[in-house]
Amino acid sequence: MTQESVKKDRVLALSGGVGGAKLALGLRNIVPAGKLTVVANAGDDFEHLGLHVSPDIDTLLYTLAGLDNPETGWGRRGETWTFMKALAALGGETWFRLGDGDLAIHVERTRRLHAGEPLSHIIRDFADRLGVRAAIVPMTNDPVRTRVRTSDGWLDFQRYFVEQQCRPEVSEFSYEGAATAKPHPDFIAAITSPELRAIVICPSNPFISIEPILALPGVREALCGCTAPVIAVAPIIGGEAVKGPTAKMMRELGLKVGAETVAQRYGDLLDGYIVDHRDAALVAKLPIPTIAANAFMVSLADREQLAKMTLAFADELSQRRS
Amino acid sequence: MTQESVKKDRVLALSGGVGGAKLALGLRNIVPAGKLTVVANAGDDFEHLGLHVSPDIDTLLYTLAGLDNPETGWGRRGETWTFMKALAALGGETWFRLGDGDLAIHVERTRRLHAGEPLSHIIRDFADRLGVRAAIVPMTNDPVRTRVRTSDGWLDFQRYFVEQQCRPEVSEFSYEGAATAKPHPDFIAAITSPELRAIVICPSNPFISIEPILALPGVREALCGCTAPVIAVAPIIGGEAVKGPTAKMMRELGLKVGAETVAQRYGDLLDGYIVDHRDAALVAKLPIPTIAANAFMVSLADREQLAKMTLAFADELSQRRS
Repeated sequence: MTQESVKKDRVLALSGGVGGAKLALGLRNIVPAGKLTVVANAGDDFEHLGLHVSPDIDTLLYTLAGLDNPETGWGRRGETWTFMKALAALGGETWFRLGDGDLAIHVERTRRLHAGEPLSHIIRDFADRLGVRAAIVPMTNDPVRTRVRTSDGWLDFQRYFVEQQCRPEVSEFSYEGAATAKPHPDFIAAITSPELRAIVICPSNPFISIEPILALPGVREALCGCTAPVIAVAPIIGGEAVKGPTAKMMRELGLKVGAETVAQRYGDLLDGYIVDHRDAALVAKLPIPTIAANAFMVSLADREQLAKMTLAFADELSQRRS
Repeated sequence: MTQESVKKDRVLALSGGVGGAKLALGLRNIVPAGKLTVVANAGDDFEHLGLHVSPDIDTLLYTLAGLDNPETGWGRRGETWTFMKALAALGGETWFRLGDGDLAIHVERTRRLHAGEPLSHIIRDFADRLGVRAAIVPMTNDPVRTRVRTSDGWLDFQRYFVEQQCRPEVSEFSYEGAATAKPHPDFIAAITSPELRAIVICPSNPFISIEPILALPGVREALCGCTAPVIAVAPIIGGEAVKGPTAKMMRELGLKVGAETVAQRYGDLLDGYIVDHRDAALVAKLPIPTIAANAFMVSLADREQLAKMTLAFADELSQRRS
C-alpha cells in the first residue's frame, strides 16, 4: 500500500468535561463510525466516599451517549437525588453531589478497578454498552491528580473546584503523578496512526483539562512530531470563558484574559487555531494559522458545524504542507 | 447498693430482620428510653458491588427509625430505583436490589469500615442520627458468613436467599468464622448486667437469624447462666412461617414444622416460650413454661402488646425463681 492509498479518516480529540464534550459530540456525529478517539483528562479523577469518580470521563460518556443533563452541564438527565438526602441524614459528606443514576457508574467502576481491571477497559465497556460510538480513552490508567495552589494553600482539585467553588485565588497547578504516568497506548497509537486526519484540542480549560494530558511523558513531543495537523479551539470568547473558571484563573495567574493566551500556552504543538467570530481580530495577529468560526456552541447543529469547520481547516493545513 | 435496690429495667433482644424487628419495635416503645439493646444477626452480611451490606442490621435500623418500607418488609419507604436502572445499563449485577436511599447506608458504612472503624461504632452513630432510641449491636465486629448446603451445593447466604429465592433444598447451615469471632462486648455486658429484666429471642428464623448469634463462642453458655429469664417468641404460627422460608427449611431438614421445633432447637437456654393462640395446645405439652399470646403482629399495637406480654411473662418467671 502506498502512502497515497492510506485513507486519512481518523480523528483524535483531547478533551476535558463540559466544553470539550460539546465539540467531541459534534465530531462524533460527522466522523465515520469508529474513527473518533477522544482522550479524556483524568487529572480530576478522585476518590470520594470510597468510590473512584472520573468527572471528565463521565461527562464525555454521558454526552456522547445522549444521557447528559443539559441544565447542569454535568451528571445525567432524569436524575433523582434520594441517595444524597439519605447520606446527609447519616452524616456523610455532601459537598460533592452524586445523583442516584450517576452513582451506578462510580460504584461499578470502583468494583471493577478493585477487581484489577484497568480504567480504560472499564470505560470502553461502559461506552459500548451506552452506545457512545466513539473510543473514549482515559489519558492514562495511572493515577494523576491535579492540585491547585491557592491563597488557602494547596488544595485537591475537587475540593477547590466543587467544595470551594473556585473561590480561592490560584497561583499554580500541579499534576501529581503525571511525570511517571504512562500515556495510554491507544492515545500514542492514535497520534502516530498513518490514518490520522487531525488532532483537535477541544475548547476545554487549558490549566485543568488539557495541560494534565500534555504533562504526561512524551505526549507533547508526540503531538509536535505528528504528521496530522494539531488544531485547538479557543475556550475563551470575547475575553470570557464560555463556562467555568478559565478566565478567573488567567486573571489570577497574571495572564491576559483572551483566546491568544491559550494559543501561547499550547505553543509550538499547534498547527492551527480557531477563535470565535468575536475574536476575529486575532486571525491577523497570531503567529500561527488561525481562523474565526462560531465557537459558541448552543445547538447540536452548532457543535456539528464547528466540528466540520475544524476538520476542513485541518485538511487545508495538511494540503498547504504537502 | 444491695441486690434489692438494683432496678431491673434493661431488656436484651436477639433479632434477625423483618419478623424480629417487629417485636424489637414493640419493645423499644414500651421499655424506658436507652434501656433496650437489640443484638442483630450479622451472618447475612455480605460484600456486594464492593459495598458492605448488612441486611438484618439495616432492617432493624430502618424499622426502629420509622423508615422501613411496610410493603416490601425490607429497604426504605419512599425509595427510588434510579441506581439499579443505570447499573443494569452498565452491565452491573442486579440480582440484589439496592434502592437509591438504601445505598447511602451501604456506601457510608463501607467507607467508614475501610477507614478502620468497627461496624458497631458505625451502627451506633447511624442509630443516633436516625433517632432509633435503642442500642442496635451487631452480634460481632468480626466477619461471620452464613452458608447454606443445598441440592445445588454450598451457597453463600444471599445467593441462596435472594438470587435463588430459597428454591434449592436445604440440608445444612454453616456460620463461617463464627467459631473464632468475638461476641460484641456490649452483647456480653448486656447478658451479665445486674439490671437485666429479660432476654427476648425475637420471632426470627432460627437457622439463619438466631443460630448464627448462638454459634459465637460463649454466647450459649452466657445465656444459659444468665440470671434474667430468656424467653423466645415462636416464629411459626399454626405450622406456617409468618414470613420467609422457616417452614420450608424445617421440612427440608426433616424437622416437624411447628412452633415446638424452635423451642427444641433453643433447648436448655430457654426459660420460657411464647406461642400464638393458634398453637395454644402446645402450652400444656412443652417441657418449659409456655404461654399463648397474639404472636401474629399486624399493627403497631400488636407489636407493643406482644412486647408487654413478653416482659410480663419474664417478670412472672423471675418471681417464680426467687
